[in-house]
Amino acid sequence: MGQMTIKDVARRAGVSFQTVSLVLNHPERVARTTRETIEAAMRELDFVPSLAARSLRKKPSRSIACVFSVGAQPYDDASGLMQETYQGLVLQTFAAVADQHGYTLIHRRWNSDDPDGLTRITSLVSEARVDGVVVFADRRNDPLIAMLQAKRFPFVVFGLDVPGTHFAMRAERDAVYEAVRYLVQTGSRSICFFKGERGGRRLRTVTERLRGYREALAEAGVPPCDDLVIPCDWNSESGYRVTLDLLDRSVRPDAIVAANDRVAFGVLKALHDRGVRVPDDIRVVGFDNFVQAAYTIPSLTSIEVPTLEMVRFTFATLVEVIEGTRAPDDLAQKLFPTRLVIRDSTGLIRSDVADRPGVERIAARGDGAS
Amino acid sequence: MGQMTIKDVARRAGVSFQTVSLVLNHPERVARTTRETIEAAMRELDFVPSLAARSLRKKPSRSIACVFSVGAQPYDDASGLMQETYQGLVLQTFAAVADQHGYTLIHRRWNSDDPDGLTRITSLVSEARVDGVVVFADRRNDPLIAMLQAKRFPFVVFGLDVPGTHFAMRAERDAVYEAVRYLVQTGSRSICFFKGERGGRRLRTVTERLRGYREALAEAGVPPCDDLVIPCDWNSESGYRVTLDLLDRSVRPDAIVAANDRVAFGVLKALHDRGVRVPDDIRVVGFDNFVQAAYTIPSLTSIEVPTLEMVRFTFATLVEVIEGTRAPDDLAQKLFPTRLVIRDSTGLIRSDVADRPGVERIAARGDGAS
Repeated sequence: MGQMTIKDVARRAGVSFQTVSLVLNHPERVARTTRETIEAAMRELDFVPSLAARSLRKKPSRSIACVFSVGAQPYDDASGLMQETYQGLVLQTFAAVADQHGYTLIHRRWNSDDPDGLTRITSLVSEARVDGVVVFADRRNDPLIAMLQAKRFPFVVFGLDVPGTHFAMRAERDAVYEAVRYLVQTGSRSICFFKGERGGRRLRTVTERLRGYREALAEAGVPPCDDLVIPCDWNSESGYRVTLDLLDRSVRPDAIVAANDRVAFGVLKALHDRGVRVPDDIRVVGFDNFVQAAYTIPSLTSIEVPTLEMVRFTFATLVEVIEGTRAPDDLAQKLFPTRLVIRDSTGLIRSDVADRPGVERIAARGDGAS
Repeated sequence: MGQMTIKDVARRAGVSFQTVSLVLNHPERVARTTRETIEAAMRELDFVPSLAARSLRKKPSRSIACVFSVGAQPYDDASGLMQETYQGLVLQTFAAVADQHGYTLIHRRWNSDDPDGLTRITSLVSEARVDGVVVFADRRNDPLIAMLQAKRFPFVVFGLDVPGTHFAMRAERDAVYEAVRYLVQTGSRSICFFKGERGGRRLRTVTERLRGYREALAEAGVPPCDDLVIPCDWNSESGYRVTLDLLDRSVRPDAIVAANDRVAFGVLKALHDRGVRVPDDIRVVGFDNFVQAAYTIPSLTSIEVPTLEMVRFTFATLVEVIEGTRAPDDLAQKLFPTRLVIRDSTGLIRSDVADRPGVERIAARGDGAS
């Protein structure tokens, strides 16, 4: 069976092709019964909307948009602080991969607390100024996702497992599970988990990490202690401050798993300023494995994320959806495994742990800085 | 006198307005004598091309492109390394500022060694998919600048003082001059300058910095020593390696001015690994003042760059040019002063230095990490 066009759909549904086009681009403007008739016709014909809809547009823009949802709070990067962020790094990687494939990358942020925020993204999509969207979501009910689904516009979610969508996500639970299991197996008993927060909002990724933390402790027979799960922001300043507070307690933990490397940099600094030895007194683990982690003093054990692979997968999937070579119900959904990179901040490891999967020893030889 | 249109220019030059439009958009397709006649008419009428040319386009795209020139060498960010870069941070700031003004940001890179590289940027401009361009140039004869000038397309150069263009640049010479003067005045005599390089290419910004280094030494009567000017790459790995080499010499310097903070992080690590005390044996200064500089051990003295101000100036200028409210010969050219932020890596400073302009003391009270 050849590729169906919207004219085939229109014929089957007994409507004009303009009405089908309207369903594709502005479903909210079409009466519900008409829309349902047309949607049924699409299903019957195995109609791939993106490919066909494209033929009505001027031409492919060869552009994709990376769209970030931001809260009402102004972001660090708008305050003029020179500070690496995971999003910024991911965006750079998307720009490089898009470039290699002759695509232009558009960078948009939208404020989910601003009533006009979504409208402006919608116009980007409706005017076909981009062929597809990468959605950086931190919650499953992100209104941008609902909008793109309603318009049947090509998109892939980055960083979160949203059912019914194409997505790429880090194996957040496994990442922290491996780190905590390693710490327990090498002698730590009182392990603090610095739980990342943003404006107090509960993030699914953090919930997943917390699950990994709790399951690793339970498996090792270490009783959980809610006092050891500590909220902090995603930056060095917060890591520094929260660690100082922690050191004022009567009982100190013997390890800290930080929300990310930036937090861990602050943790290391606070421990140093208070004369607490790392790893002898407290061991520290970061998350993201920034290049910088190899150059802290002591060098930082961290969780490496396969960002380039995730970006390539996301981009390739999006292009398949745009070009119609992937059927709508053939969802590309992938959890990407992480890797624990062990350095001096957690000390030497026992040989029986070193060979386990997910645990790789690269310490002891100058932190990769040779 | 009211705003001139391309029809006024056409009348004055005795040609059709389509020919004027062609001169604006594809000057290479117009015979030289015709083009010169039209250009003379534009000058006589004080014609502002961007505003008028826009009226012939469909409508403003409300998009601007940030275009980076990259060499044949693949960049770090394409290798999957999670690493902050100055460009990445600047781009994040542009995205935030553009968002605040309802502009979409397009991120493009072009390879100056690829014959088709410039062509793809040209199409972005010719098809009016963007209203203006921010050029990230590291040499004055960047072909992208020549192309944009030939097309009279709105653009501003970021990071370099290119004559005849609107630009925003850091006061590179003054920045290093201040740092070296401070080091000399507080006792350093053998000051190493880690000169950033990219593929061995001579960068004007680095030449400017070197001038500041030499002038500060000359002013203090410290004889210059070419052995102390050392090429290095712009990353921690290079800073680490170059420092180890330096420590193998028979005579050690007493201070190092690094090409940027990432380099300085590698310097601090190498000194630590070799048991060299900072600042007692060797003092260290970075450049960029990343947030991370406050959290190194010891915290890093660095040169703060007013990135947000530079981005705002660049964006505001570009919008003026796009909207035609700035006359073509009214060039917006600004050198932005930097600020030396003194922390523990250069030790305590004498009170007679502390009050000088450009030297600010924020050390001694917990590195701002309180």
